[in-house]
Amino acid sequence: MASPSSMTTTSSTTSKLVFSGCSTSSSSSSSPRLLPLTTATTSSKCRAFHFHRRFNPLRHVHLRPCKNPTTVFAQTISPPSFIAAAMATEPSAKVIDGKRVAKEIREEVAAGVSKMKEALGVVPGLAVILVGDRKDSATYVRNKKKACEDAGIKSFEACLPKDATEEEVLKHISSFNNDPAVHGILVQLPLPSHINEQNVLNAVCIEKDVDGFHPLNIGRLAMRDREPLFVPCTPKGCIELLHRYGVVIKGKRAVVIGRSNIVGMPAALLLQREDATVSVVHSRTKNPEEFTREADIIISAVGQANMVKGSWIKPGAVIIDVGINPVEDSESPRGYRLVGDVCYDEARQIASAITPVPGGVGPMTIAMLLSNTLTSAKRIHNFN
Amino acid sequence: MASPSSMTTTSSTTSKLVFSGCSTSSSSSSSPRLLPLTTATTSSKCRAFHFHRRFNPLRHVHLRPCKNPTTVFAQTISPPSFIAAAMATEPSAKVIDGKRVAKEIREEVAAGVSKMKEALGVVPGLAVILVGDRKDSATYVRNKKKACEDAGIKSFEACLPKDATEEEVLKHISSFNNDPAVHGILVQLPLPSHINEQNVLNAVCIEKDVDGFHPLNIGRLAMRDREPLFVPCTPKGCIELLHRYGVVIKGKRAVVIGRSNIVGMPAALLLQREDATVSVVHSRTKNPEEFTREADIIISAVGQANMVKGSWIKPGAVIIDVGINPVEDSESPRGYRLVGDVCYDEARQIASAITPVPGGVGPMTIAMLLSNTLTSAKRIHNFN
Repeated sequence: MASPSSMTTTSSTTSKLVFSGCSTSSSSSSSPRLLPLTTATTSSKCRAFHFHRRFNPLRHVHLRPCKNPTTVFAQTISPPSFIAAAMATEPSAKVIDGKRVAKEIREEVAAGVSKMKEALGVVPGLAVILVGDRKDSATYVRNKKKACEDAGIKSFEACLPKDATEEEVLKHISSFNNDPAVHGILVQLPLPSHINEQNVLNAVCIEKDVDGFHPLNIGRLAMRDREPLFVPCTPKGCIELLHRYGVVIKGKRAVVIGRSNIVGMPAALLLQREDATVSVVHSRTKNPEEFTREADIIISAVGQANMVKGSWIKPGAVIIDVGINPVEDSESPRGYRLVGDVCYDEARQIASAITPVPGGVGPMTIAMLLSNTLTSAKRIHNFN
Repeated sequence: MASPSSMTTTSSTTSKLVFSGCSTSSSSSSSPRLLPLTTATTSSKCRAFHFHRRFNPLRHVHLRPCKNPTTVFAQTISPPSFIAAAMATEPSAKVIDGKRVAKEIREEVAAGVSKMKEALGVVPGLAVILVGDRKDSATYVRNKKKACEDAGIKSFEACLPKDATEEEVLKHISSFNNDPAVHGILVQLPLPSHINEQNVLNAVCIEKDVDGFHPLNIGRLAMRDREPLFVPCTPKGCIELLHRYGVVIKGKRAVVIGRSNIVGMPAALLLQREDATVSVVHSRTKNPEEFTREADIIISAVGQANMVKGSWIKPGAVIIDVGINPVEDSESPRGYRLVGDVCYDEARQIASAITPVPGGVGPMTIAMLLSNTLTSAKRIHNFN
């Protein structure tokens, strides 16, 4: 059982998975560090690209004959035509507002939590285990706590010192596994290097694995006619954005950049479950742009600032950018700013829709975590 | 415990997985029935294609500009150049002899079994559960039995009537789970429709899941830095053929046709683990040939006779054909012959290497099953 001193109420992380999977500021063992592109270190947007030539979509799109432009929207959004996209002097892509969608989802979760409390007197509970004193991890845990409070979810927290033993961590997990007030358990990654991440994640009982990282959940996600109990939050958030913006996935070509356990791989499996034809591009892929140029949907989760140029994108494609990368910016009060894997200014002149960074996928992770926690509580209490 | 009457010695199946996943003669719930192509019903090879025009590789290869021809061999095989392949009037592809490789593997397994018996007095054991009286299933089970005998593996068999209850099947699985003489358990698919395949497969303890179908094994296969205890036999056989023929996988483009739980999906995961860039093509893919034409390696597991034409193949590609499809053949004494998913006569003029059907992937399944059983026995007895 977590000691009272280390156990308090807690909350959300927009950024936990995103950062641990994609940001250059973190060093989770699961972090992908893929294609060998230098990180932009300038305040000018997509500068590495602009150094060479002034961007002109007409020049950069078709390095080989491109098939029809993408038409992936069902109804919600009118796709700009190829000509419109290519000739645009102003950005034409619809901005996929993850902040707004995440807010909607959090409100839906809050309503669901209320309903459950009213009907059964049960309040969903989320436990977070934090080991060590990483500043970024502490911030994420604080955010989780706040988001839980807002949604009416009870949060539990076990804060352990950085020299805590694996046994101690496992003891806390076991205690949360057995606590009927806890419906979801989340281990804040990365763990200190002396702790075996696999052993710890495997110890979370599958019914409370709201992060969806248990191999049994991943196996069910990969298999046809099987259903995982939980889907990892960040890739689930990516697909939710596509759904809520009416993007058709079935029959479309999707490229996932990155194959991490926490974003790329499950994102590819989710897209395939929705009948996209999926290619996974990674650090060993030669000429990844040859794949992305054919894609109707791109999900990038690679942690390389501005890696995906305008010239990598098929006109009309939909871009989900999971990367959150700090680049130096002397004009910013903090000395840096956050950019995605995709060169946003270039992409929004070619794509039909794109997530910004920040404010795109980031806020979705915590929203899906809250949603998974409510789902778990409903399942455990057989409440619909 | 399996009753003595239903429990005898048993053996191999080359074909079990192949047929249940790929053959049109079987109806496993996991069977992929994918792209809408008519099955050839003529004795002329690849007739559906020849009907339209006489085959000429030069006319059929490049419907759009093709990049460099594939060079995927490490050393064992010299790849024919694009020109050589395209100009060839005689077939130029190396035939990947699965029968020979499977025999080698079975001999290696037999040697390993001998060594283990000598050192520990332990004989690896494989149990097969067969429900119902399907003629094809009975044949496969008989083949398994024979292959086990040849390799020195003890085989166990539980033959249940087609109206056996799920509970009875589960009872037999439980009995084999607890039997220390059994190191591998295989449930012959398809099961009668009143039995839930998921429940049955999930009941096999993961340490004896030599078929590798347990979601926990699949999850570990999908995840980086995780190791499955077992890899499904047919896709493992495909990769083993590539390895033994010196085909370089790392950095190559691979296309898997089909996304079944037993072949396509695990084959894609295996190729990705070996650092190929993998695209999975399936029934919802528009213009699958646009993907295959870019592929250095194609694994087809779709169950459509002669679906993959010569024009679908990049010069120099390596083709692994998992399909075993019966087509009418008035010249054959049986009235039919077996062909693959790939139009062999066309493909071998374009590809640098190809598996024949029969005699390609087919014999590998049982070889890998024996190998998995030996691996299991070694692991359980901590024997290297």
